Amino acid sequence: MFGRIDHIGIAVADLEPAIALHSATYGLPLVHRETLEHQGVEAVLLDVGESHVELIRPLSPESGVGRWLAANGPGLHHVAYGVEDVAAELERLVAAGMRAIDERPRPGLRGTSVAFLHPASAAGVLTELVQSPSEVHP
Amino acid sequence: MFGRIDHIGIAVADLEPAIALHSATYGLPLVHRETLEHQGVEAVLLDVGESHVELIRPLSPESGVGRWLAANGPGLHHVAYGVEDVAAELERLVAAGMRAIDERPRPGLRGTSVAFLHPASAAGVLTELVQSPSEVHP
Repeated sequence: MFGRIDHIGIAVADLEPAIALHSATYGLPLVHRETLEHQGVEAVLLDVGESHVELIRPLSPESGVGRWLAANGPGLHHVAYGVEDVAAELERLVAAGMRAIDERPRPGLRGTSVAFLHPASAAGVLTELVQSPSEVHP
Repeated sequence: MFGRIDHIGIAVADLEPAIALHSATYGLPLVHRETLEHQGVEAVLLDVGESHVELIRPLSPESGVGRWLAANGPGLHHVAYGVEDVAAELERLVAAGMRAIDERPRPGLRGTSVAFLHPASAAGVLTELVQSPSEVHP
């Protein structure tokens, strides 16, 4: 079961104007910046209530996000829900007939554990499950 | 300044399977259902933390959401942020150079007051401002 919106992911070609929009204009504090080489993105997190806005820039045009950006232009890329146990949720959702992109959880930003569900079985929405580090089991 | 994610808006052609996914599979309680004739949509709200998922179905193919759905297929349509004073925020953002879709706030779901910002100046994201009924001034 999903506890909250962990973040919305917004794909952009250039991070700096998007950071300025969300921090200076919208007033959201920038709290994290990280490059995830294995996912081919540089990502920035800004706090908003119990959620974040995640700005993602592809490291190359050939990456998944790079191809998405070329096809769609900048905009809403995915939504992520906070869950207590990402492995158990992934197993439950696949058993319920959903199509997973990740067979098992993998590392996300800031020590989180994450897994993606395919839009095909998720109302057309690329959907991510996120388990906070404090909830990641050893 | 934006206080929280009020909701994400997901456009779908058929509400029932999307409701089943979000309520039965994701575990989010359905809390509201309303037809907004002037916006050309039927909308459903499901609670998730301090936010909602808003499922929207166009009432006709000629409506704004109907045309969006025909062009893009089902999926993430907009994000809405909670604000204390939507009229003041709209004025501030337009003064900051942002492009508004609504010149002034208009009625949203459940007695809210809302205004939309154009994606062109919002990182490609159709962005909504939402003021709760308790915060709507007479």
